[in-house]
Amino acid sequence: MSETYTLHEDPISANCYKIRLTAALLGLPLARKAYDIRQGETRTPAFLAQVNANGRIPVLQIANGANTRFLPESNAACWYLAHGSALVPADRFEQADCLRWMFFEQYNHEPNVATLRFWLAYLGTDRLNEVQKAQIPAKRVAGEAALQLMDEHLAARDWFAGNALSLADIALFAYTHVAGEGGFDLSLWPHLQRWIARVQAAPGFAPMV
Amino acid sequence: MSETYTLHEDPISANCYKIRLTAALLGLPLARKAYDIRQGETRTPAFLAQVNANGRIPVLQIANGANTRFLPESNAACWYLAHGSALVPADRFEQADCLRWMFFEQYNHEPNVATLRFWLAYLGTDRLNEVQKAQIPAKRVAGEAALQLMDEHLAARDWFAGNALSLADIALFAYTHVAGEGGFDLSLWPHLQRWIARVQAAPGFAPMV
Repeated sequence: MSETYTLHEDPISANCYKIRLTAALLGLPLARKAYDIRQGETRTPAFLAQVNANGRIPVLQIANGANTRFLPESNAACWYLAHGSALVPADRFEQADCLRWMFFEQYNHEPNVATLRFWLAYLGTDRLNEVQKAQIPAKRVAGEAALQLMDEHLAARDWFAGNALSLADIALFAYTHVAGEGGFDLSLWPHLQRWIARVQAAPGFAPMV
Repeated sequence: MSETYTLHEDPISANCYKIRLTAALLGLPLARKAYDIRQGETRTPAFLAQVNANGRIPVLQIANGANTRFLPESNAACWYLAHGSALVPADRFEQADCLRWMFFEQYNHEPNVATLRFWLAYLGTDRLNEVQKAQIPAKRVAGEAALQLMDEHLAARDWFAGNALSLADIALFAYTHVAGEGGFDLSLWPHLQRWIARVQAAPGFAPMV
């Protein structure tokens, strides 16, 4: 296959790491182009015109001969890379259930667990505005609820969808395993901790840093 | 096929309507069971234990003989129903691009366009707490940005992913066509208005009410 992949990313973003982890587990080469979101590097006119009109990373650039396409949204980029692989369950229900956890990740998990990590560990409380500061308690509660739900789901099973590692696990692993940086105490959720170790033991696993 | 479907829903939720619209376009019978989210009916112990531990609707109940399964997350339920149909693009890039817009919908669109509709038209400003009220201006800006991005995308194309109606259109149509209830002025986005009319003209289309 002549197709090549370039990830437009910020290395501190675990949304970007999802795509690197997916590529690593599949053994796919992935070039990387770094931007600093804290310096507004994904909001420049060139980035908006050529890479993503939504001004966000990650974006997966897919080049095939003269044909180059750009795919935003971390979980969609993982889906593209994992097409036809065991990371996307083939069974109709398991595939939809895999997506169920990926949508849960973007709706219930990322806006709380990832946002608190970014605000507290990377921006710093001094740079937050009053509206952001006022949201911290609700995001703490909602983030803990998401992690609690995941822990309960894993009480009787090893993986989120089906009976094997899938994109659901990759999507949820990304910000869960660094949730401590956002002030979440992972020692509260033992099933979650064991699942993190299972993901880290997967053949081909690549760490975030 | 002996499989039957029941949608656990609140009729005011356009997330639930996505699933009804998908079923209608596919000609699939769908039973409905209503809950009032404003009365906490999706947070009861029975609902949490049997239907969705996350306390949210919609949930698609899939019954096949003695086997009953529950699938939360609106876009995942649509994916299950549309499996193997033209609403899910078969092409690898178009399928990932369809999901790209579905994830965009849950991350950039729904938390702003749907939340303002719920807060302003269904809860009422008098019932909002101070943290919610403080978020209104930012949600207005973010919701308008999402609608603007959609309008620009549709300037040169009829549908969001590929060259035909797909689940990306259904997911985005749900809260876009009622965005006026949240105070968004759809007359600002003419491409969006024409796309709304195209979706409404699709064979099998069912209105929300």
